[in-house]
Amino acid sequence: MAFLSTQPYKGTRDFYPDDHKIRSWIFSRMRDACTSFGYQEYDGPMLEPFELYAAKSGEEIVNQQLYWMMDRGDRKMAVRPEMTPTMARMVAGKVNELPKPVRWFSIPNLWRYERPQRGRLREHWQLNVDVLGGNSLLADAEILIVALDLMKRFGGEKHVSIRVNNRRLMDEFFSKKLGLAPETTLRVVKLIDARAKIGEEKFTAGLAEAGVPANVKDELEKFFSSSLASLGNAMPCAGVDELTKVFGYLSESGIRVSGNPGDTTSQVVFDPMIMRGLDYYTGTVFEMFDTSPENRRAMFGGGRYDNLVGLFGKDKLSGVGFGMGDVTLRDFLDTHGLLPKMESSVDVFVSLPKEEYRGKAEWIAGALRSANFKTVTPLEVNGFGVQLKQAVKHAARFAVLFGDTEFLEGKVVLKDLDQNSQEVVTFNDVVAAVAKACR
Amino acid sequence: MAFLSTQPYKGTRDFYPDDHKIRSWIFSRMRDACTSFGYQEYDGPMLEPFELYAAKSGEEIVNQQLYWMMDRGDRKMAVRPEMTPTMARMVAGKVNELPKPVRWFSIPNLWRYERPQRGRLREHWQLNVDVLGGNSLLADAEILIVALDLMKRFGGEKHVSIRVNNRRLMDEFFSKKLGLAPETTLRVVKLIDARAKIGEEKFTAGLAEAGVPANVKDELEKFFSSSLASLGNAMPCAGVDELTKVFGYLSESGIRVSGNPGDTTSQVVFDPMIMRGLDYYTGTVFEMFDTSPENRRAMFGGGRYDNLVGLFGKDKLSGVGFGMGDVTLRDFLDTHGLLPKMESSVDVFVSLPKEEYRGKAEWIAGALRSANFKTVTPLEVNGFGVQLKQAVKHAARFAVLFGDTEFLEGKVVLKDLDQNSQEVVTFNDVVAAVAKACR
Repeated sequence: MAFLSTQPYKGTRDFYPDDHKIRSWIFSRMRDACTSFGYQEYDGPMLEPFELYAAKSGEEIVNQQLYWMMDRGDRKMAVRPEMTPTMARMVAGKVNELPKPVRWFSIPNLWRYERPQRGRLREHWQLNVDVLGGNSLLADAEILIVALDLMKRFGGEKHVSIRVNNRRLMDEFFSKKLGLAPETTLRVVKLIDARAKIGEEKFTAGLAEAGVPANVKDELEKFFSSSLASLGNAMPCAGVDELTKVFGYLSESGIRVSGNPGDTTSQVVFDPMIMRGLDYYTGTVFEMFDTSPENRRAMFGGGRYDNLVGLFGKDKLSGVGFGMGDVTLRDFLDTHGLLPKMESSVDVFVSLPKEEYRGKAEWIAGALRSANFKTVTPLEVNGFGVQLKQAVKHAARFAVLFGDTEFLEGKVVLKDLDQNSQEVVTFNDVVAAVAKACR
Repeated sequence: MAFLSTQPYKGTRDFYPDDHKIRSWIFSRMRDACTSFGYQEYDGPMLEPFELYAAKSGEEIVNQQLYWMMDRGDRKMAVRPEMTPTMARMVAGKVNELPKPVRWFSIPNLWRYERPQRGRLREHWQLNVDVLGGNSLLADAEILIVALDLMKRFGGEKHVSIRVNNRRLMDEFFSKKLGLAPETTLRVVKLIDARAKIGEEKFTAGLAEAGVPANVKDELEKFFSSSLASLGNAMPCAGVDELTKVFGYLSESGIRVSGNPGDTTSQVVFDPMIMRGLDYYTGTVFEMFDTSPENRRAMFGGGRYDNLVGLFGKDKLSGVGFGMGDVTLRDFLDTHGLLPKMESSVDVFVSLPKEEYRGKAEWIAGALRSANFKTVTPLEVNGFGVQLKQAVKHAARFAVLFGDTEFLEGKVVLKDLDQNSQEVVTFNDVVAAVAKACR
């Protein structure tokens, strides 16, 4: 018989305890950031009807990346590739009962069939943060503030900046100013999105292929380096107004903002090159960038969308939100040395040198556990040397050691493995002694 | 166009924030119990190769309940129906590196195609707790202690007892004592497992059909009411020895144990009717029962298994563990009124009666968030009455209210909505005043 492989499915991850600790640490900071702003966590099932994605998700996702199957009742079910459709379904289901604005977040596991590469796997966990039913641009400002707070909680705030644009401004520019047809706009937008990846030569060639005249390309370049203030004069429109308002709100909240695309020191910067494809978004769009030279790339993004629940026959409800993947974030934290040493899984190792000590050892262990100290007892009787080694292997801070003399006096040796010190304490005093040493 | 349904897939659950809070509360207590014993959390991918289950999982799971699909690279992938195969794969993958005993736990989401009914859905979350590489029966005792500690952390310890049996004892009894052939044993075990569900009449008829003579049925009944002590005399064997040892360890750890199947007051009771099917288990088997008359049923169970990693070509490694589903647990907690009132998602609501207060409102909100108070600011300017209603709707404990007179003096009104009291404090003192009121 051939043996089964011990490897996880290609493009997926096993979280052994050391990795799971990091994942939990990351999730916990995500939760702290979101809940501090009053956002509530939700979740839905991993499998959803295929139609939920067929309707709204991008063509690439549905045709090339979706994991799907027929269930035993002949329903076509998909493993969720993104959370927004589930969120929209859930909000639509209780649209009248939910108090507005809806402030929600979730950390789902999402699946797409992709060619695995650095920063891109077949599954990842993605923080999704959304405000719904808040039409005010204060919602856009709040979402950006939450995103910045998140990075602050990871100690990464000085390595990032958010680049912000507005889809209404882009529509104004492409159709009214340049007079491009929608199909041409689509091609141009895709080229702009890909510019950093494909390089200048291919970018220029692509524009020519799309039928964009040379003078239009010049206008494009000029536009890309325009400040928000100058656009306010040259191209007054709703998009510029919205951006100006959002930037004003951010500034009031103590965020350093800049309307100049070249600015590298502000936390939030206007950047007319931010596109975010063409789906979903209708107003504010943004991307969080790592600003350090060795890792200069978009980490995640989001924006404002309209009519999310229309597919479910409900009235318009607009919102603004973002999604942030754990793989990209972990890369960022690694790059900048922001992952702290994780806590040990064991605080105290209670030894068992003789069977007769077992009752007392278990009693002490129980008392330590009740006081919230992670406590391990061995599953075999062993001598002092062996058990001290086990305590070290467990990375325990303390070891409780039994000696015949001490035992007769109702005492144990409490060894502090970090400080390399020890003291003799009564059975009853072990918890207090450990607590004192931890203070 | 037909609208999409807002319902989740049949047999699955949407976790809206109120339900998600309960789920998080449950998971958090599970984690506390496991980590207090030094167990480490792990996780693996939701999709695993189909063969992983074909090899070891029960026939019913593989042929009737597994969700599976071909991926775009023609690999047959399954949505995990249980966690043990993933755990075995991961342990096998690092079998030499992992310090023994391996104490692991996980809370995976598992999927089976079932007819949805009370206590049984198509997906559930299941706490899995295992000790591996601890051949000593101390591991069996520890797992039972962890299971009891878990129930204690939910406040449910007085409503449960664990019934324990041993597969070696059953083998001895069925094959040596009764002389039943393996196929007959299989049928008898299934009948015993189903006895409570099918009733006495069908049970007796089933035994006759299986070719069990009437006198053997009498022996069966006598066996089922035997105490551990009496079996020690009548049928000395490894199974009885193991049970006796495990009960001795538990007693040393301060657990109330009883060797009499009829005992209804002990925490751990010997019960020769506990079967746990025929797969996996090789020694200790157990089930946690709700002892209250209105809900008398098995909540979860587990036991000792051997050679878990053999399928991966690794040396024998035995272990003991259990799995506990969240649906059953939630039913138990509901039945006994053990779910506490969940915390509000908002501590403080900072109002915005005029645009000009916004900068200060955001500053106060930021200070509150930094001090770990969940704080919401409105997304629209609104009068006092509207915003106080919003604060109540958010179930906020406090509201920060702005008045023109107070504002000019650098002060706000801090309203305690629980106590229905208020005080005027300076901008700088809001955090301290909230903290003081919460103490």
